[in-house]
Amino acid sequence: MRILCRFVPASKQTLTPLVGLRSFTTTNRTTGRYRVPRSKHVQPGMATATTLKGQPLDRPVLDSLLRRRMFYTPSFDLYGGVAGLYDYGPPGCALLTNMIELWRKHFVLEEDMMELDCTALTPHEVLKTSGHVDKFSDWMCKDPKNGEIIRADHFVEEILNQRLKGNLEARGQQIEEKEVDPSKKKRKVKETKAIKLDDAVIQEYEEILAKIDNYDGEELGELIIRYEMKNPNTGVMPEPPVAFNLMFQTSIGPSSNAPGFLRPETAQGQFLNFAKLLEFNQQQMPFASASIGKSFRNEISPRAGLLRVREFLMAEIEHYVDPLGGKKHSRFAEVKGVELVLLNRNTQLSGKTNVETVAIGKAVADGIVDNETLGYFLARVQLFLKKLGVDQTKIRFRQHMANEMAHYATDCWDAELLTSYGWVECVGCADRSAYDLTVHSKKTGIPLVVRETRAEPLVIEEFAAEVDKKKFGPFFKKDGKAVEAAIAATTQEQRESLAKDLIQNGKIAIEVPGVGSGTVEISKDLLVIEKRTRTEHTREYTPNVIEPSFGIGRILYSLLEHNYWTRATEGNDESRGVLSFPPPIAPTKVLLVPLSGHESFKPIIKHLSHKLRAMGISNRIDDSSASIGRRYSRNDELGTPLGITVDFQSVQDKTFTLRDRDSTKQVRADEATIIKAIQEVVNGEKEWKDVEKELPAFEGQDAEVAIPVR
Amino acid sequence: MRILCRFVPASKQTLTPLVGLRSFTTTNRTTGRYRVPRSKHVQPGMATATTLKGQPLDRPVLDSLLRRRMFYTPSFDLYGGVAGLYDYGPPGCALLTNMIELWRKHFVLEEDMMELDCTALTPHEVLKTSGHVDKFSDWMCKDPKNGEIIRADHFVEEILNQRLKGNLEARGQQIEEKEVDPSKKKRKVKETKAIKLDDAVIQEYEEILAKIDNYDGEELGELIIRYEMKNPNTGVMPEPPVAFNLMFQTSIGPSSNAPGFLRPETAQGQFLNFAKLLEFNQQQMPFASASIGKSFRNEISPRAGLLRVREFLMAEIEHYVDPLGGKKHSRFAEVKGVELVLLNRNTQLSGKTNVETVAIGKAVADGIVDNETLGYFLARVQLFLKKLGVDQTKIRFRQHMANEMAHYATDCWDAELLTSYGWVECVGCADRSAYDLTVHSKKTGIPLVVRETRAEPLVIEEFAAEVDKKKFGPFFKKDGKAVEAAIAATTQEQRESLAKDLIQNGKIAIEVPGVGSGTVEISKDLLVIEKRTRTEHTREYTPNVIEPSFGIGRILYSLLEHNYWTRATEGNDESRGVLSFPPPIAPTKVLLVPLSGHESFKPIIKHLSHKLRAMGISNRIDDSSASIGRRYSRNDELGTPLGITVDFQSVQDKTFTLRDRDSTKQVRADEATIIKAIQEVVNGEKEWKDVEKELPAFEGQDAEVAIPVR
Repeated sequence: MRILCRFVPASKQTLTPLVGLRSFTTTNRTTGRYRVPRSKHVQPGMATATTLKGQPLDRPVLDSLLRRRMFYTPSFDLYGGVAGLYDYGPPGCALLTNMIELWRKHFVLEEDMMELDCTALTPHEVLKTSGHVDKFSDWMCKDPKNGEIIRADHFVEEILNQRLKGNLEARGQQIEEKEVDPSKKKRKVKETKAIKLDDAVIQEYEEILAKIDNYDGEELGELIIRYEMKNPNTGVMPEPPVAFNLMFQTSIGPSSNAPGFLRPETAQGQFLNFAKLLEFNQQQMPFASASIGKSFRNEISPRAGLLRVREFLMAEIEHYVDPLGGKKHSRFAEVKGVELVLLNRNTQLSGKTNVETVAIGKAVADGIVDNETLGYFLARVQLFLKKLGVDQTKIRFRQHMANEMAHYATDCWDAELLTSYGWVECVGCADRSAYDLTVHSKKTGIPLVVRETRAEPLVIEEFAAEVDKKKFGPFFKKDGKAVEAAIAATTQEQRESLAKDLIQNGKIAIEVPGVGSGTVEISKDLLVIEKRTRTEHTREYTPNVIEPSFGIGRILYSLLEHNYWTRATEGNDESRGVLSFPPPIAPTKVLLVPLSGHESFKPIIKHLSHKLRAMGISNRIDDSSASIGRRYSRNDELGTPLGITVDFQSVQDKTFTLRDRDSTKQVRADEATIIKAIQEVVNGEKEWKDVEKELPAFEGQDAEVAIPVR
Repeated sequence: MRILCRFVPASKQTLTPLVGLRSFTTTNRTTGRYRVPRSKHVQPGMATATTLKGQPLDRPVLDSLLRRRMFYTPSFDLYGGVAGLYDYGPPGCALLTNMIELWRKHFVLEEDMMELDCTALTPHEVLKTSGHVDKFSDWMCKDPKNGEIIRADHFVEEILNQRLKGNLEARGQQIEEKEVDPSKKKRKVKETKAIKLDDAVIQEYEEILAKIDNYDGEELGELIIRYEMKNPNTGVMPEPPVAFNLMFQTSIGPSSNAPGFLRPETAQGQFLNFAKLLEFNQQQMPFASASIGKSFRNEISPRAGLLRVREFLMAEIEHYVDPLGGKKHSRFAEVKGVELVLLNRNTQLSGKTNVETVAIGKAVADGIVDNETLGYFLARVQLFLKKLGVDQTKIRFRQHMANEMAHYATDCWDAELLTSYGWVECVGCADRSAYDLTVHSKKTGIPLVVRETRAEPLVIEEFAAEVDKKKFGPFFKKDGKAVEAAIAATTQEQRESLAKDLIQNGKIAIEVPGVGSGTVEISKDLLVIEKRTRTEHTREYTPNVIEPSFGIGRILYSLLEHNYWTRATEGNDESRGVLSFPPPIAPTKVLLVPLSGHESFKPIIKHLSHKLRAMGISNRIDDSSASIGRRYSRNDELGTPLGITVDFQSVQDKTFTLRDRDSTKQVRADEATIIKAIQEVVNGEKEWKDVEKELPAFEGQDAEVAIPVR
């Protein structure tokens, strides 16, 4: 079965899909076929992608900046690289650390969540129970001629799109050609043939494309044969699709009979610790566990840089809540005024992508969002993304369609961020009901439940079935157990009817597979079925789970695009890149530049660096021979928000200039004042505009004066 | 070949080895046979293990506390667990986070290191080059009867120790029996047979045991046969040892022809990024990269809890330094007074374990530690461990023996921490020379070197060999290239002799495998070999690497033992556990306890919790119905350093009591004063004794008054 694959193409008009993004969230991880027809949630992407300042975003230029400044880099580059594996370099790594720290503060510390660090190595049995072994797979085809391995749905899609394109050409119609980043196109496909198609065929193709996410392997195989789809690279049809499990398999321990996998998500480790956490929390509900760690998915053909990778950092929360009582949240009042951009299910069903901005309090009250706890987390996610520096105009929360959700989920919303690749699912918030705890408990026989004393004992009137042990055993002999189990398994409704039978006929007939003919008769002297009353003092229930799940790498990439812009410089044709991260998130906080290599600057620079370090403020010295302007512009690309220049005046009067990355404006003051300003900006207590108001402006030594965009 | 295995038994007298600890460091990762005979560095362990207060350490009691308070827990417990895999629970996870944060501050920020986050998935080729594919293995035997898999060296050791023990019994000598934690003994071994051995046999056995680390698989197999060692569980001899590679293997991507491994260390990813980092650092040397991440080793039989696991967190630094100029360090002066407890190579060679306390400045000056850079890091490691809260009397730095080090290493020191398992290697500091950069460069053909302009151009006089291209090619035809390569590969010495041949005989003979008879004659009209002078303006060199490598889980476990002690309580027979972590490292900083469930306490507790959270100070509310004393003692076990009690007086005058975990003493003051004191203690600016001096003492509501041990 095909799962967890949601395509978010850059544009509805895109003929060759730019990128297929696997959902990293756990919402729909164990059932197939709930993908929304992609046309329903397509949004203009690359064509309209913009920088922080609204300039058109030139992705190849940004990519080049990110590689040059080592935000990330292909892993094992020296050995030719491995698709879907990236290393984070120093600024990327610092960004990651700052994001994680903020996440911990915003979620774990704020909500007193119980953080866990579980292993990535996972035994087979656990992932068999969770459904991953059987269902966590994609369909792939092999080309019999060149051995090329192709994702079946991508292949069908590509061929049909090429044919539709050829038809347009043959009809002499204009094709809106998209600019496709060539580095992202893995499979080289031959030129489109201009062949006119019948109107009926066009309609068939379009219907297939609209439903592409719903086909299983056999169906995809049939489509390939029916429409004679040949691999353009070899001219032959690929072999029938086979399921390819997306988990990395290995063997734990020296004997080969202990197969294991690398976890595809952190959630399972958390579920398995539920009972211990409940105990740790002194049996109190609700509570949440949280986990930050690497997960692994063996993508068939990873593309799109950091957005679809084989090893990635996740941060997941499993919030356990009582399924009764409407899933209220005690802190919901604190967030009810937070406004979210929502793209709900009904809007999507009507084929539209209109969003509405609604306060979460109203969304829950109106039933758009299912319950308070889910609503609380949606608002908290929004606040988190805002703190991080995600562009507020490029966030939306998209509700999953009914057929897109797992059968056990009540509601699910994805926080999607708009990038040049289109809308990218970055955080999934699902109400997963009691599914995982139930399957693990059933498999292991260990109860995973909450027990609470009822305020009022519960009196239950129900049909009880009781066998006369003394007669029952001797009568059924070896079959006794099976027959008894079959009786015990009857529902209340069945018992009601059986009780009548017993009275009317003096016996009942019950199905017991494997015993006699499969139906067993039991007479009334062996069995009593009657209405009885019992009193329950304890309530026992399996909690439901609300799961916000964060793809940290995807958020990081979106953050890079959202904070990027270019600045024209005087006397220089090229414009220069700037990454305007919020100071608390920025990889390095302060750049220290001596005006020149003059000896008198060295001890001052060293002193400042030491002082900042002691305060936990990361800083870098650039004492290279490049001009001050060039040194600053290098650090604008690194997103360093502040810069101190040490000049000859500094040597004399211990005053320094402090420069703002975004405006390139400078102020001048003594050491203590400058350091205090830095600390306040870095902690997020003040913004540059506050600093600018308080301290005297400085205009001077910046050799290449920058022209701000606005 | 057997590598990376260093056994640190709890005591020289231990008959059954308690624990085999694989060195996690990278020092000797690629060559075999450099293990020091264990008797040389054995130290009393469990017998003399003590708590923070010098009480005998009862490990089962501590273990029980750690599991009960969920510091860590066996992974997949619900499914019966998997040996060598542990999850960290909330307090363990917080401890881990605080340790990592301190590590980043102490090393990465302080030294402006370039942090990387590389993938754990690693292609086969990389680890083939590094030597791991061929050499990173242990020897294992299979029992033909029951299929049991046994580590060969452990087996030989166990059998011989049992026989020596039986001999002592037969001779009626007293055996000093160690208390062995039963949960740690994996293999059930039958009772010792009291059989007297000849003196000569005893001596043979003892010699084998002393050299056990130096045998390869074939030799171990021979020993098993020669001494007829049978598996006590089955009565048969195991099959001959086979090499078992300790890396977890998997396959990357959909085709099975891309084998990969989970990294056994983070170092390789760092080495592969060397050239990019040098560029990022604007070609300046020296510099260091750093990485924190999970590594994986498929241990044959993991034991000893967190000390030998299959998935573990490492923090590694690769500091690149010019091999010329004595490997000086610019900040060495800052640490030269730091005193370290050293166990040097010569002492160990003489069979002793006497340590000496030496200032690192003197140790380097005296040549005990090879160079300043290595010395600098040893001192920095010592300072780090001190900040963490490692018992200063339980640290030593042990130098590797010459035969224990990799052939390319110049010097190597391990920071070892004393625990109930004996001395545990927790940090390895090795001078790895240019090994890794050289092998990767050689394999990929990509230079991994530093180029620097020489202050003075270097004039080199050397023998040059130059062929006459016009004649050479036509003469040798298709063999030309091979012959030319053979000439180019000659050394200066060979060329000197060849130059003479050319003058004397008018021709030379040179070996060229695969061409003609394997020896080729070249006449003087095709080739000139003569002394020439050339001038080099640029110096090119492969940097050496100093590598401090931290096993975070091992340090964490040692920290738990070092900070643990028990406190007797009045009116209570049992003593209670306390974990006295330094406040900056403690998992939770503040416990908030209302005196009772009275409604008036609730808003105050909520307010305090919110206020502390806003300051980033983690806190937990315990409003359970247990007595105050019991609630505090629960949090003493969690290592929470401070506690605020809200009582009726608090409701009236907004004053609170602040309790110290270690002394159980309390002070009372208003909110602002208490919060300020908390902040100072948590930041490490003040200690409790300062708080006690400044604020008025409070004696009162603690129901069960604790009796401090001293």
